[in-house]
Amino acid sequence: MTDNKDTKPVVADGAAAAAPAQAQKKGKENKQKKDKPSQQPKAKPAAAAAAKSADESSSVQIGIEAKKELDTPKWYAQVLTRSEMLDYYDVSGCYILRPWAYGIWQQIQAYFNEKIEDSGVENCYFPMFVSGKALEREKDHVEGFAPEVAWVTKAGSSDLAEPIAIRPTSETVMYPAYAKWINSHRDLPLRLNQWCNVVRWEFKHPQPFLRTREFLWQEGHTAFMTQPEAEKEVLEILDYYRQVYEHLLAVPVVPGRKSEKEKFAGGLFTTTVEAFVPVTGRAIQGATSHCLGQNFAKMFDIMATDDKGENCHVWQNSWGITTRTIGVMVMVHGDNKGLVLPPRVASVQVVLVPCGITVKTTDEQRKAIADYVQDVAKDLKKAGIRVKADLRDNYSPGYKFNHWEMRGVPLRIEVGPKDMQKNQVLSVRRDTGAKTPLARDDLAKSVADVLETIQEDMFARAKAERDEHLKVIEQWDDGFVGLLDAKNMVMAPWCTEPKCEDWIKDNSARSNTGDEAVDEKAPSMGAKSLCIPFAQPKEIKEGTKCFANGCSNKAVSYAMFGRSY
Amino acid sequence: MTDNKDTKPVVADGAAAAAPAQAQKKGKENKQKKDKPSQQPKAKPAAAAAAKSADESSSVQIGIEAKKELDTPKWYAQVLTRSEMLDYYDVSGCYILRPWAYGIWQQIQAYFNEKIEDSGVENCYFPMFVSGKALEREKDHVEGFAPEVAWVTKAGSSDLAEPIAIRPTSETVMYPAYAKWINSHRDLPLRLNQWCNVVRWEFKHPQPFLRTREFLWQEGHTAFMTQPEAEKEVLEILDYYRQVYEHLLAVPVVPGRKSEKEKFAGGLFTTTVEAFVPVTGRAIQGATSHCLGQNFAKMFDIMATDDKGENCHVWQNSWGITTRTIGVMVMVHGDNKGLVLPPRVASVQVVLVPCGITVKTTDEQRKAIADYVQDVAKDLKKAGIRVKADLRDNYSPGYKFNHWEMRGVPLRIEVGPKDMQKNQVLSVRRDTGAKTPLARDDLAKSVADVLETIQEDMFARAKAERDEHLKVIEQWDDGFVGLLDAKNMVMAPWCTEPKCEDWIKDNSARSNTGDEAVDEKAPSMGAKSLCIPFAQPKEIKEGTKCFANGCSNKAVSYAMFGRSY
Repeated sequence: MTDNKDTKPVVADGAAAAAPAQAQKKGKENKQKKDKPSQQPKAKPAAAAAAKSADESSSVQIGIEAKKELDTPKWYAQVLTRSEMLDYYDVSGCYILRPWAYGIWQQIQAYFNEKIEDSGVENCYFPMFVSGKALEREKDHVEGFAPEVAWVTKAGSSDLAEPIAIRPTSETVMYPAYAKWINSHRDLPLRLNQWCNVVRWEFKHPQPFLRTREFLWQEGHTAFMTQPEAEKEVLEILDYYRQVYEHLLAVPVVPGRKSEKEKFAGGLFTTTVEAFVPVTGRAIQGATSHCLGQNFAKMFDIMATDDKGENCHVWQNSWGITTRTIGVMVMVHGDNKGLVLPPRVASVQVVLVPCGITVKTTDEQRKAIADYVQDVAKDLKKAGIRVKADLRDNYSPGYKFNHWEMRGVPLRIEVGPKDMQKNQVLSVRRDTGAKTPLARDDLAKSVADVLETIQEDMFARAKAERDEHLKVIEQWDDGFVGLLDAKNMVMAPWCTEPKCEDWIKDNSARSNTGDEAVDEKAPSMGAKSLCIPFAQPKEIKEGTKCFANGCSNKAVSYAMFGRSY
Repeated sequence: MTDNKDTKPVVADGAAAAAPAQAQKKGKENKQKKDKPSQQPKAKPAAAAAAKSADESSSVQIGIEAKKELDTPKWYAQVLTRSEMLDYYDVSGCYILRPWAYGIWQQIQAYFNEKIEDSGVENCYFPMFVSGKALEREKDHVEGFAPEVAWVTKAGSSDLAEPIAIRPTSETVMYPAYAKWINSHRDLPLRLNQWCNVVRWEFKHPQPFLRTREFLWQEGHTAFMTQPEAEKEVLEILDYYRQVYEHLLAVPVVPGRKSEKEKFAGGLFTTTVEAFVPVTGRAIQGATSHCLGQNFAKMFDIMATDDKGENCHVWQNSWGITTRTIGVMVMVHGDNKGLVLPPRVASVQVVLVPCGITVKTTDEQRKAIADYVQDVAKDLKKAGIRVKADLRDNYSPGYKFNHWEMRGVPLRIEVGPKDMQKNQVLSVRRDTGAKTPLARDDLAKSVADVLETIQEDMFARAKAERDEHLKVIEQWDDGFVGLLDAKNMVMAPWCTEPKCEDWIKDNSARSNTGDEAVDEKAPSMGAKSLCIPFAQPKEIKEGTKCFANGCSNKAVSYAMFGRSY
């Protein structure tokens, strides 16, 4: 077994392990200052902290100083930049996705692409630009998106005759073509998907992954002859989204239906998977699958003759999942050492670190260890495990432990002279820190098993924590606002009316009780309905009233409320 | 063997096979008129023809009327729209890539991604927006791109404080981050790639795939400690591009170096693979791999300490291949029946069509044929062949033959009652029309062999045709302009000077000899240097003069000239 006393996070100004990084910094200090993100909003302290941490340069710092539970925004910025997931950029609300984050997106893409391809969806690509005329064709839809649309008005030094919008979503880009392509029920279902960037120029405070002005997503746009077919697909896709969160990212979600107030602008109804960030007590919309009904078909004149020869408007859906997934995963699983990556999405699932090399170690012994490590790497790679052997000779094992822990690699395998003698290795789990010797024989199998266990345990822990923060009440006075203040989501019997939702929001902003026990870090904005969960906590009894004090309507369903991102 | 007399293209107003399509058209005729592309340039006849053919709706027309050699632009537009590769869009210069085209792009992506991943390149994503300040940091570079840059000046109803550019390419987006990330030789090489959209708002006549205002590409951006490492990578990547064209798309290319006049704005030197479109006699740049030298490193202050502790500017490359690939493939291989797809990129490699069913065929016999076809499909799929069984019962075999021929499916397999009796199927090659019975036993193996042969034959034919149109001359008066007029590319000993290149261009516009034998369809613009081929036709003898009449310089290399896209 190997010595790994120095696995604590190391900060740049501290331990000796950081010395090589400090050496690199020399001669560039004047230069680093130039790269300060210049267009980050300066008003809010969180943004300033984020900009500062970006400025500290991710290649220099190898520990996380901020504590997740004490200063979450600073912790989030440090984890993202120092793990080399992301970097800041000089256009506000835009971020650089580095390979460590983009690799996770590629895993999500591959997984989701296989699901939808098996289901009969085809990938394609539509233009990024929308003419004003097309954008304005559906009234509710354009009202929903117009305030955030970015407009191109110039090319080179010429003004364009008409401003052209950048897609915030592609309904208005695609549906004129659908009208042209669809003539008969034989052209249906039409099920297309594209992976692309979209732009929503929000003026709210941006946050990496969670709220950005440009983001990556897939958007599926489908058309069916009948309503039941469309509705079936809405739920099929929503379940794929649930699987992306739960199976890949080990993040539990609540599938349900959005309220009228929260549904997609111009659609018939919206379904959603809702995730939860325990450290802030805030909910976050994970992905949405919309049934658009026949509304867009009417606006865009998309008609098909059915098998009886009758000409009908088609039924449409649209659905999307974004790079926000990555931010949610970081928020849920990350800890004070940095990222914790679920094995299924980690670009590197196992890192191999040679250990126990001292000044007394002969060159021959060094080579024997390196060979042994390479051999293990080969075996694991052959078994389909994404493995990296860290054979750098200018860093200590302790430095490497910190380096890969901060990056969230699910499993570390240490190999020292004593391990070799015993024909074994030492495995160390990132999620729990648990150390287990594993026999060299049949190692690929036992490593695969450990990775599977890590994945399952991460999900189980996240689910237990989410469940603890999901409270069911019957009446407003059962402590609705207090439960929100204590970082919970709350389920209650609700009438689902927009007017009532406005009342709930207005009346659930942080209560100013002067109670010092209240966590100052809990969110304080009003709550909105997150969804009406498909799995209801109980049946609504005949005659049950809406839980909101200001409402005299009957309750229709339990709805889940929360302060949210 | 089956009857396939009716495999000639069928147009909507003609043969009976098109009847189902015509029936679909009913009740939508008034609607189709609305979807006329409104912003297509109207000035040029080619564009008008293209717009018209798009308007005829690809789901109605199933044959190609235009002849490739007589009216190439019209033929190109008909092939693309009616094969459902592409559709027109109401923003000029932007096109819709439908699944039939996007599937080819996905094949190219998978192939190239594997090559670069094995080589150590990592994928990532940088923002689409560039601040004016960053864009303007390299003078030659911004001069090269500024006339085509699209600017966002508004978001919602607010004017932005500063206009923000949409990336025409990402050097200026990425390199401020490179300056921050790179400190030491240990951070090198840095080799990143992204797959994304870019915008170049050209005012020249747009052409689907070949010249578009938004297009998809990959752009690799790498940094090295030394010049030799950078130069080695330039050629490594260029060879991957050659393989994309030659191995995947069966299009021969000439690898070489660009002249000073034609190189990438701001770079040190540019390498290229140059393709050729025989029907128009025009060359087309296939993909480029640039060595940027230290120029951007100096402008963006990207420095690293080398292993001797000295602080040096890094050496950089950038390289890209675009969706233009698809247009080149269509132009080179397509014929008067439509697309001809190389098996390696076709989304459907083999289509199975049940044949020989008449009014006398019993239900039992029909089912037996359908089962047999399904069984063949299963076998082929299991062997990794992309196969589709066309079991539609409302179309005749002849209609289906035309349908899949127009879409370019490499191999058709017909199965009729007599084939089943003989325990065989009939294969029909798209590229040659050759029909060969194949034994049902071991069919997957023989089909895979036929597909391989098709791929090789397509390349060999395209190469022979390209070679026929590649002429080597020693002097201008050996007929430089006449050879261009006769749709050739020309290699000649050249001085490589920008001034000489201008003279050549000015003096090689179509000669107005009044000679009626000259092909009116041949291009008439001046020629430019396409590249200085790495494989020179012969050695330049000491003292050889530049071939251009207007030039007194010595020749340096044979260069390849042509009228080009």
